[in-house]
Amino acid sequence: MEQHFATLSFTTRGRGLLDITDRVRDCVAASGLCKGLATLFLRHTSASLLIQENADPAVQDDLERFFARLVPDGDPLFRHRAEGPDDMPAHVRTALTAVQLAIPVLDGSLALGTWQGVYLWEHRRQGHRREVVVHVLGER
Amino acid sequence: MEQHFATLSFTTRGRGLLDITDRVRDCVAASGLCKGLATLFLRHTSASLLIQENADPAVQDDLERFFARLVPDGDPLFRHRAEGPDDMPAHVRTALTAVQLAIPVLDGSLALGTWQGVYLWEHRRQGHRREVVVHVLGER
Amino acid sequence: MEQHFATLSFTTRGRGLLDITDRVRDCVAASGLCKGLATLFLRHTSASLLIQENADPAVQDDLERFFARLVPDGDPLFRHRAEGPDDMPAHVRTALTAVQLAIPVLDGSLALGTWQGVYLWEHRRQGHRREVVVHVLGER
Repeated sequence: MEQHFATLSFTTRGRGLLDITDRVRDCVAASGLCKGLATLFLRHTSASLLIQENADPAVQDDLERFFARLVPDGDPLFRHRAEGPDDMPAHVRTALTAVQLAIPVLDGSLALGTWQGVYLWEHRRQGHRREVVVHVLGER
Repeated sequence: MEQHFATLSFTTRGRGLLDITDRVRDCVAASGLCKGLATLFLRHTSASLLIQENADPAVQDDLERFFARLVPDGDPLFRHRAEGPDDMPAHVRTALTAVQLAIPVLDGSLALGTWQGVYLWEHRRQGHRREVVVHVLGER
Repeated sequence: MEQHFATLSFTTRGRGLLDITDRVRDCVAASGLCKGLATLFLRHTSASLLIQENADPAVQDDLERFFARLVPDGDPLFRHRAEGPDDMPAHVRTALTAVQLAIPVLDGSLALGTWQGVYLWEHRRQGHRREVVVHVLGER
């Protein structure tokens, strides 16, 4: 059994989903491991990692609109506004989703379903630099 | 250290929670591993994996009713309706929950708490065939 | 590759976030492993594990207030009230968050981001005794 680490950096363009599937696949390929488990960990508290549909872009728009309605920017409920009206909503969205994902690796690739993509979900209005640590464990 | 893989298939009967604890336990037993970590991964974007109370069935009904109110079928907010009024709500429910779980294995069995069961949560109104990849890592 | 287990016990003081970062760090240090993966698993269905901002305490208050509004205690929607008006809301909050977390270990410590802390989120009004199983996998 072996393990490999990589740190992926992304520059987001503000709120929305960024498809990182290929970057994660490349990490797994670079590890040389054929079967095992890939774990992704996002080192932030105002963005998420998400597995979602990779076919119709309307899914991503609808997700974004649902969360904007559920956790409104500038909600007077929130006292933490140090970085603006989208600051606390970004933390709530993160709590409602996840910052880590574990995906099995089979035949040297992520064992995703046909319609699954891996996304980094930026919750802040402005773009940010985001880091994802990738841990790949397994056998050649 | 060893690892074992299995793929479990389930046919759901429409929206609701399906108890898969025994099927997962059987996978762990079949691996022959005594202590380690079991990771489950659901290969879909309109169903979830969930750990919830296994005692009072009213908990499952209440969960279902809460999510039906939070993410209403046919909500005019949603544009992605390719597969009907429950299509996009199913994706949102998946984003609000999870498609993967990691559970420690101790004494050859899942280290669940007394009241914890493992559930596959179908979010579509109609039944679907669902696949869960189980990765068991550990020692004999 | 080695693996180590520990079970951490916490006594919560009712609803709210309890910072458990140092206790988890101590587990990783005690394992003697330098690089690998730490997986935490909470053995309950009315509390969560969460990674959130560790700087401004207002973030934790706002999170608590948001969830109190989203899933109100005593909501007539709920039929499961065996343990009072906060019983079913605690299960819903757990479903909306998570009971497990996986965090990479690098240089003998958790690879958390600068602003990330690890929290046990008690969802019941009264304090409870809570157990977290910690699995550390990796190399010296």
